[in-house]
Amino acid sequence: MEQSVGLVTTKQLNINTELRLESGRLLGPLTIAYETYGTLNRDGSNVILATHAWTGDAHAAGYHTPEDRKPGWWDNMIGPGKVLDTDRYFVICSNTIGSCKGSTGPTSINPRSGKPYRLKFPVLMIRDMVRAQKLLLDHLGIGSLKAVIGGSMGAMQAVEWAIHYPDMVRSIVPIAGTGRTSPMAIALNALARQAIYNDPLWKKGNYPIEHPPGDGLALARAVGHISFLSDASMWLKFDRRFSVRDGMFDFFGQFEIERYLEYNGGTFVERFDTNSFLYLAKALDLYDIAWNFDSPSDALSHLHCPSLWFAFTSDWLYPPQQTEEVVNELQRQHKPVEYHCIPSDYGHDSFLVEPEKFIPLLQNFLDRIE
Amino acid sequence: MEQSVGLVTTKQLNINTELRLESGRLLGPLTIAYETYGTLNRDGSNVILATHAWTGDAHAAGYHTPEDRKPGWWDNMIGPGKVLDTDRYFVICSNTIGSCKGSTGPTSINPRSGKPYRLKFPVLMIRDMVRAQKLLLDHLGIGSLKAVIGGSMGAMQAVEWAIHYPDMVRSIVPIAGTGRTSPMAIALNALARQAIYNDPLWKKGNYPIEHPPGDGLALARAVGHISFLSDASMWLKFDRRFSVRDGMFDFFGQFEIERYLEYNGGTFVERFDTNSFLYLAKALDLYDIAWNFDSPSDALSHLHCPSLWFAFTSDWLYPPQQTEEVVNELQRQHKPVEYHCIPSDYGHDSFLVEPEKFIPLLQNFLDRIE
Repeated sequence: MEQSVGLVTTKQLNINTELRLESGRLLGPLTIAYETYGTLNRDGSNVILATHAWTGDAHAAGYHTPEDRKPGWWDNMIGPGKVLDTDRYFVICSNTIGSCKGSTGPTSINPRSGKPYRLKFPVLMIRDMVRAQKLLLDHLGIGSLKAVIGGSMGAMQAVEWAIHYPDMVRSIVPIAGTGRTSPMAIALNALARQAIYNDPLWKKGNYPIEHPPGDGLALARAVGHISFLSDASMWLKFDRRFSVRDGMFDFFGQFEIERYLEYNGGTFVERFDTNSFLYLAKALDLYDIAWNFDSPSDALSHLHCPSLWFAFTSDWLYPPQQTEEVVNELQRQHKPVEYHCIPSDYGHDSFLVEPEKFIPLLQNFLDRIE
Repeated sequence: MEQSVGLVTTKQLNINTELRLESGRLLGPLTIAYETYGTLNRDGSNVILATHAWTGDAHAAGYHTPEDRKPGWWDNMIGPGKVLDTDRYFVICSNTIGSCKGSTGPTSINPRSGKPYRLKFPVLMIRDMVRAQKLLLDHLGIGSLKAVIGGSMGAMQAVEWAIHYPDMVRSIVPIAGTGRTSPMAIALNALARQAIYNDPLWKKGNYPIEHPPGDGLALARAVGHISFLSDASMWLKFDRRFSVRDGMFDFFGQFEIERYLEYNGGTFVERFDTNSFLYLAKALDLYDIAWNFDSPSDALSHLHCPSLWFAFTSDWLYPPQQTEEVVNELQRQHKPVEYHCIPSDYGHDSFLVEPEKFIPLLQNFLDRIE
């Protein structure tokens, strides 16, 4: 556990309020799951908020038990002496609402019925997730963020933070993000949705928790998995290798890439709720910085803080030109903006797989933020 | 019906033989469905073979009835005065074995049981399809092909023709093809397969023909459909438009791209057999010019005729670099080869959608073939 934050626990905050959502619906009371690493300094100026991706959670660093085989999802970034240095910064990560990892979501009890929300849960936007995070920070007495940093859905949250709480955010670092979800990304999510809807165990969301629509969710996850990889990374990792257990002319014979997708889809079912997966997919699809503004440039006119953007050459889910659209507009508005398109073969997943490629640039940026 | 070949019929040839497949299994007797356009000249030197893609058929040009709303699948290429000029050439298109459009496939009667083959049908390779086409041409008394031309799976057939029947083929034109199917393309086909396997109506291939696993096949088709399009073409056609019938915050509300995929998946079920879809997907996955050769360059050393290759910039299913791998090797071997990477936003489908972009180059090439 060298350079690790060590053992950590996920805390839960109950907030007895009703949040007005972008849809006009009210959601509450709210529970927010979160973890913190490092120590809040006296003037509260050392807070960094890490925002997670689609199937992430509040457990960004360290271990829950000494037996854990894996640390939190961004442990290579967060810890003593790491780029998000817990000897200097107080790092917070919270589970988004709509998820199933401790924050209010479709598996939570609907106070109006005393039963789980399931499909009675309101459709969310990324902006709603950020508003719920704001309530958490208010509760923790935090009034200023040195940086909001995240990849993929985490990048979307970072941008929304800067646009909607410009007085609170001193910088943002959106990684492998986009300013609005493309029809290609929506189409891929549509496949994932349909895979779940086609599973008879889904029962329009009314499956017993112990009998989820596993085949549908595993296939939905495989769709996502492919979109996180790249042509190049698949050649590197799998090439055209055929499973040694199968005959090449067996009807059910599999290439290694197929076995991999099947295996990962299967393990995902054990750790993620199907309805939550669908609600988060919907939030991703609806994401558009221009929502409720006149235009993207109107939305970005509210962003004032320095921003550092990373995109990855082989990312075909949120390809670099989508980040560049936003960056170009910020430059046009003379905002302090820094952008790097990082050569990587690991597709969208690069932000998790090859952080060493952008860590020095991030380090340099953070050192310059007051 | 200007410039049309007019009314045509699909013919079927029964061949009372057993074809030895790459798998070592025997398939026979064979039925091959085919259409011809134009007139065979006296010395039999004006034959062009058009080879179809995954879900194509023998009906490449003209109309089956005066009421037909659409002509054959490559009608913009084949006809009097068109690039595959039926005033000059005798154009043949045959349905591949393994398909369900008149040639022997999983829906055909297995002579050993008197019942449809279903999953007793042998796994095929593209090479097997080409060998069956060769039997058809033998039967028609055709000993020489001025050109073999096709897109996608049709491109694979063209290459196999040149490698395996070098004395018979005077040129090939592979469009939007590859020398070996990539793990990305295999992964996408794996999604399609799993979508079908997950459908309880599939019954391991033993569904009644009138009750196919429609939800599974429609989803499988949607996977393919996405891979045939591109990010750019989806922005052009759908952008982020939301269905006017749905509320944006309805859980089941859809973007236009989703409605489109759903609609097209649904209509596909009416026209294609599920097991055939799976067998053809398998043949695509297994495609590798180097199969049963020492290497790709060994395989290509057998190709002697002039070849003209087209790839499309936005094709991410069989991206240009995959064609370039083959073209570079042919150039290394000093073979007569011509290659064009065509700028197009229409992805893999460009070969069907924007033929005007490559027709002049094709015309010029064909005019130079003896």
